[in-house]
Amino acid sequence: MPIPGPGYAITVRVEAPSSSSAAGDLAVAVGNVGGVVTAFDVVESRTDAIVVDISCNALNSEHAEEITAALGAVPGVTVRKVSDRTFLIHLGGKIEVSSKVALRNRDDLSRAYTPGVARVCQAIAANPSDARRLTIKRNTVAVVTDGSAVLGLGNLGAAASMPVMEGKAALFKRFANVDAWPVALDTQDTEEIIRTVQVIAPAYGGINLEDIAAPRCFEIERRLRELLDIPVFHDDQHGTAVVVLGALRNALRVVHKSISDAKIVVCGVGAAGSAIIRLLASEKPGEVLAVDIDGIVHASRPGLDENLTSIAAQTNPTDRSGSLADALVGADVFIGVSAPNLFGADEAATMADDAIIFALANPDPEIDPSVAMQHAAVVATGRSDYPNQINNVLAFPGVFRGLLDAQAHDITDRMLLAASAAIADVVAEPNASFIVPSVFDQSVAPAVADAVRHAAQEAAAAGEVTAGL
Amino acid sequence: MPIPGPGYAITVRVEAPSSSSAAGDLAVAVGNVGGVVTAFDVVESRTDAIVVDISCNALNSEHAEEITAALGAVPGVTVRKVSDRTFLIHLGGKIEVSSKVALRNRDDLSRAYTPGVARVCQAIAANPSDARRLTIKRNTVAVVTDGSAVLGLGNLGAAASMPVMEGKAALFKRFANVDAWPVALDTQDTEEIIRTVQVIAPAYGGINLEDIAAPRCFEIERRLRELLDIPVFHDDQHGTAVVVLGALRNALRVVHKSISDAKIVVCGVGAAGSAIIRLLASEKPGEVLAVDIDGIVHASRPGLDENLTSIAAQTNPTDRSGSLADALVGADVFIGVSAPNLFGADEAATMADDAIIFALANPDPEIDPSVAMQHAAVVATGRSDYPNQINNVLAFPGVFRGLLDAQAHDITDRMLLAASAAIADVVAEPNASFIVPSVFDQSVAPAVADAVRHAAQEAAAAGEVTAGL
Repeated sequence: MPIPGPGYAITVRVEAPSSSSAAGDLAVAVGNVGGVVTAFDVVESRTDAIVVDISCNALNSEHAEEITAALGAVPGVTVRKVSDRTFLIHLGGKIEVSSKVALRNRDDLSRAYTPGVARVCQAIAANPSDARRLTIKRNTVAVVTDGSAVLGLGNLGAAASMPVMEGKAALFKRFANVDAWPVALDTQDTEEIIRTVQVIAPAYGGINLEDIAAPRCFEIERRLRELLDIPVFHDDQHGTAVVVLGALRNALRVVHKSISDAKIVVCGVGAAGSAIIRLLASEKPGEVLAVDIDGIVHASRPGLDENLTSIAAQTNPTDRSGSLADALVGADVFIGVSAPNLFGADEAATMADDAIIFALANPDPEIDPSVAMQHAAVVATGRSDYPNQINNVLAFPGVFRGLLDAQAHDITDRMLLAASAAIADVVAEPNASFIVPSVFDQSVAPAVADAVRHAAQEAAAAGEVTAGL
Repeated sequence: MPIPGPGYAITVRVEAPSSSSAAGDLAVAVGNVGGVVTAFDVVESRTDAIVVDISCNALNSEHAEEITAALGAVPGVTVRKVSDRTFLIHLGGKIEVSSKVALRNRDDLSRAYTPGVARVCQAIAANPSDARRLTIKRNTVAVVTDGSAVLGLGNLGAAASMPVMEGKAALFKRFANVDAWPVALDTQDTEEIIRTVQVIAPAYGGINLEDIAAPRCFEIERRLRELLDIPVFHDDQHGTAVVVLGALRNALRVVHKSISDAKIVVCGVGAAGSAIIRLLASEKPGEVLAVDIDGIVHASRPGLDENLTSIAAQTNPTDRSGSLADALVGADVFIGVSAPNLFGADEAATMADDAIIFALANPDPEIDPSVAMQHAAVVATGRSDYPNQINNVLAFPGVFRGLLDAQAHDITDRMLLAASAAIADVVAEPNASFIVPSVFDQSVAPAVADAVRHAAQEAAAAGEVTAGL
């Protein structure tokens, strides 16, 4: 049973008779239809009536309407206005551009703009690497999408993706003081996306690809990494993989298993699944089976596309075939980044003792988490209403903080693994309900940033990547 | 003789003997080589020595070095460090991205990001015009350049143009609370620039083209106006034309002449000159002659390109030919947006009585302003060290404030003329030294914004442009 949450919070302004029972009647009315009252503010009190703002959490839009109707049905009560708090905070957008320099008088203007600025332009023209010192490139990341895979909602297009991209930019600033800017592209042509990002790149110190559908996202990422001299990170792939591997590291500690012995099933081979499999490979796991809608991926399965062929080569060394249920028998770890309700108690019961289940499909996981908890030693989801939320916010702010501070030109798997280990290590003593830190743990982003910066500097020193400046 | 300005300000840290004459010796040393001391800060005082930060304005880089050398030559003085104040304020760039929403706890996160944000995305997908209500589009302008004509410096490229674009963004915020973002394109191909701007447009409520070379800039502007449903403004064209026409309006008031009788010479037919000529045409001037490096533009002149052919059609009804000097004879107004030192006292003396000279080439005007002042009733330049500085900062912030507030889809000449009149009208009683307001006059941007918003709303009501939402 889902719980009403703040994502669907409304504030209903009602006028009610000023009787001693009025407040109680209103609260009861909300509770009767399953709403959760979070605040009760009297905004006006007269001898005959009171005006009250009742804030409550609802399950969804229909539920919000049901709550409003229930309030209106209380005898003597009139609903004046319903405000949706989520929409309210979105009015006019969630980010803004601020000037870091004072422009109080003509002297300020002469330095920040003409004529003084001319010398700064000339310095960069003479020495292009000065752009990382004298422009926003030093601290700025582009959050790039084509709007083709917005959250779990699908292909909504560029304009409708903006609230997610703005939110991402706000999180970048909040958690790691990175300046991020939404670049929502009105095209879904792979070549045009690649070229556009290349053309706008001079202003940025990094590219965060976001909500771009697979398999297009793989080629875009690969090609941009070749073309650009700044790191390219695809959050749906690498962000998820970093957090999943960090969580897995701690989950394995909790059950006293080693990754080199672990049999791991990865269900879903889109952006997230593919990246998890690739990053897992660096950790030399016991066995990995990839499963998609057609069952276990194996090299001799007909109709494999480029991505599946690559996945088959990285997994399933004994060329097993079969269904998800077949794959789960004896598995130590299930990592799902796929679709809701794919299996239940029966299949979970066939897993190895002390099994680990990461059921990350949003908002409805691959297995009901309360069922999973009965059969597995450690359960994680993408949801905030269960323990162990796997949330990319743990990774991307710190990853880019580290990359920018190292003035990195590339990003490598070793840097991603360093980020992953840093997230895991923030939890000093993991237990079954605490394998990842809270997203509000202030120590996460600095720890991730340090780890990534060190890895980037080592890579540069070893000549593995182009040296930072 | 140019005056040392704050665009070339340095701070020199010196250690000097702690004698009673030390401060005086240092100030004299700076003054002797023509530097202007603006601040004198003792940072350390010991019995034997003092450490002083001497801030001074210089003419240029060589002069700054001369001042530093002069300080080092004072007996007993050691120069410890020279800081260039213009470069100092550019470190790390001049703008940043700020979050407008609090992200204190999980409830905040649920509203600004997942899961709450999903509903906002869906609302925009269902009703695309909601993007102007629920995203940064409402208040955000792209400052787009290809780096091909950066200030007067020429083709420096995208990276080196960033300090100008960031400065512009800072000015947008400072003067009109518009969020502007630098889009520096690493291409100079007309088609690619057009397509890139089209592809990135969803995030923006307006496009400000900047420092793009003529004649490419004309086609880019025209095509983008056709393609986009947001206003496209080219500051080098329209910003300059708006301020020039505002200044001209007041200058004509000062000399009691009417524009319908005025003989006007426009020298320079690049971005600014072409736009001035087009906007002037709406004001029905007596006569306009356009002059370029080959002399007066006339329809039968061989080798006219598309832009010059259009200019010939708008000017010079009697098909006159000749040099700039020929054009100036009897002219009431000279507007130069061309090159330094094109004429002197002799030619200026041939103009009509109570002539108006706008010599706007930067940093060196078409005629020495002090010479111009001897022969003309009103003189304006682009420089801040003479009265009547023609500065685009008077126009672009307010113009976009008005366009965004009107949710305008297009920009018309009528809106530009309204902006122009608003700038002029801020000066209640113009005189020869005061035909435009100061850029720091707080009433300019709101007046311009009001005028543009009204004009946009009238145009929408009259069906001349697509209606705002």
